[in-house]
Amino acid sequence: MIENPFYSHEFHGEYDLISIGRLDLEEGGSIPDCRLAVATFGTLNDACDNAIFVSTWYSGTHQIFRDVYIGPDHALNPEKYFIVVVDQIGSGLSTSPHNADGPNAGIAMSEFPKVRIGDDVIAQERLLREHFGIETLQLVTGGSMGAQQTYEWMVRFPDKVLRAAPIAGTAQNTPHDFLFGKALTEAITSDPGWDGGEYKSNADVVDGLTRHAGIWAVMGFSTEFWKQEVWRALEFESKEAFLAGFLEPYFTAMDPNDLLAMAWKWQRGDVARHTGGDLAAALGRVTAKTYVLPINEDMFFPVRDHIAEQELIKGSELRVIDDILGHLGLFGVAPTFIGQVDQHLKELLDTKV
Amino acid sequence: MIENPFYSHEFHGEYDLISIGRLDLEEGGSIPDCRLAVATFGTLNDACDNAIFVSTWYSGTHQIFRDVYIGPDHALNPEKYFIVVVDQIGSGLSTSPHNADGPNAGIAMSEFPKVRIGDDVIAQERLLREHFGIETLQLVTGGSMGAQQTYEWMVRFPDKVLRAAPIAGTAQNTPHDFLFGKALTEAITSDPGWDGGEYKSNADVVDGLTRHAGIWAVMGFSTEFWKQEVWRALEFESKEAFLAGFLEPYFTAMDPNDLLAMAWKWQRGDVARHTGGDLAAALGRVTAKTYVLPINEDMFFPVRDHIAEQELIKGSELRVIDDILGHLGLFGVAPTFIGQVDQHLKELLDTKV
Repeated sequence: MIENPFYSHEFHGEYDLISIGRLDLEEGGSIPDCRLAVATFGTLNDACDNAIFVSTWYSGTHQIFRDVYIGPDHALNPEKYFIVVVDQIGSGLSTSPHNADGPNAGIAMSEFPKVRIGDDVIAQERLLREHFGIETLQLVTGGSMGAQQTYEWMVRFPDKVLRAAPIAGTAQNTPHDFLFGKALTEAITSDPGWDGGEYKSNADVVDGLTRHAGIWAVMGFSTEFWKQEVWRALEFESKEAFLAGFLEPYFTAMDPNDLLAMAWKWQRGDVARHTGGDLAAALGRVTAKTYVLPINEDMFFPVRDHIAEQELIKGSELRVIDDILGHLGLFGVAPTFIGQVDQHLKELLDTKV
Repeated sequence: MIENPFYSHEFHGEYDLISIGRLDLEEGGSIPDCRLAVATFGTLNDACDNAIFVSTWYSGTHQIFRDVYIGPDHALNPEKYFIVVVDQIGSGLSTSPHNADGPNAGIAMSEFPKVRIGDDVIAQERLLREHFGIETLQLVTGGSMGAQQTYEWMVRFPDKVLRAAPIAGTAQNTPHDFLFGKALTEAITSDPGWDGGEYKSNADVVDGLTRHAGIWAVMGFSTEFWKQEVWRALEFESKEAFLAGFLEPYFTAMDPNDLLAMAWKWQRGDVARHTGGDLAAALGRVTAKTYVLPINEDMFFPVRDHIAEQELIKGSELRVIDDILGHLGLFGVAPTFIGQVDQHLKELLDTKV
């Protein structure tokens, strides 16, 4: 385990670390003491039936949901719902390579086992059931890797998910996305400071993390984001200043092994694991009322990949979000972003199921 | 200078190395003895007015034009036209970092000066005029960086270019493209074997060149190329086999400094240098009859960037090429690609000017 001040309450506000005990993993091995970082908003009613579950994306945590997506003016309204956001395994807040200590000391750093999207969802379901007594979810949602987890919930626990809204992410990861994850991974592991995962500080890998940020610059935003210099709205004076002042510090603060654990998981998200590779059969299990929400300018989870899956989900609807930022529109930087998400989620939550 | 067998007649067939003498460069410095690799097809007529000029793209040479674009069944018909293909400076065949020797020994490897698209076009015009006596071109064309050179011809020498067909490339490079070039560059320079440009063999930089190929895999083809497994048509059994058997050996055979010289040039292609940054004024100088040919699935020279420029060129037409391969459709792998190019170029060549 190594110290990294980014993964702290100072940077991520209120959350609880809740142990769900030993988690046996789909790829083999286990996490002896799986701890999940959990942020909740609102109050669980006595019937335990007003819960919404939210999962996180690559490099993201509950923080962005608290700051952008959740509030009395939003569809994710804590005055009405009990909203549970769980940071994914490998996020740096939940059990992750860099923070594995105590009973998890044997899986620290380069010893961390391969974790699948399915492992996250198994852990999340156990947490909700055993810790909160929640057996039914009014809505499951999340963006990017959070969408992958949403799909896993829809297929693995169809009886528990009344409504679902995967945002900017797919049920079955695409080969292009796999290659994008490979390029991101290699940007980090090629840094001699990474040292096979046994670096002493994330600062040892600053060059690799910076290159990793540079690849995100190419794929994370749309070509028009750069052409129209949308970063000016964020009060940067040049694209170089935007990289140096936003995207690079964002990633260089993080732990390399944690990012690698998430990248590996992201590359292999696939609900068709449950049905021998048959995606239509897997999505045929879904009973949730589902809205699929792609972002129109997304470079690596393009709209057409969402459509191909949405058409396999009975009664589902496609709701395309217009955002020039592309995939990283998920940060909610554009003033028009969250309003679109809210409108779709409100309509979905108002739908009787 | 270092030996690299890839840059040879064995791999690139017939071409002549022609010196155009000293080339003073836009960014300062000079190439003492600028040698251009030149491949010609057909016969120059007595009036010297049946010439077509073709320039090359990043990592490409005259070879791909000889094999795919030029022939009696193509628009670039050597039975009718005298077709001159010049390999760009830095291509590895013309004067380049790795092959600088003799009078150019002082600019070898890490000492190689910055070369601009404008330097290429100055060199090409001098070659055509002094060596062949060509003052008028029936057509100037090229793909990607060849399109950048085509635009430079159109703006710099409008009286010499009767027709122009930039394919999958822009007159003014976009910021997104600049960042893509940055990621490619960093994949190479981050390899300790690159050694500040003073490696002893391109094999010393095989890791960096392989990562560079991996980033091309993400941006060079379309997301649908990978999803539909189009590589199967090329007789590969998996995307990994396609990378290991095609894209990686393609780039690892090349010289790192040569690729870096081309990437630097590509990042800065901009005809508005001639008009104080006013792109409309620069393109307003064009008198050539122009067809702009984007590829519909191009990830980094997207159609809309072409449209924005095409609309600034008087009398020009937009002709979109349909190719699921995306940018690297330029290789002409899809059986439907070259037919579309031929149709547009034939129509353009048949247009009276």
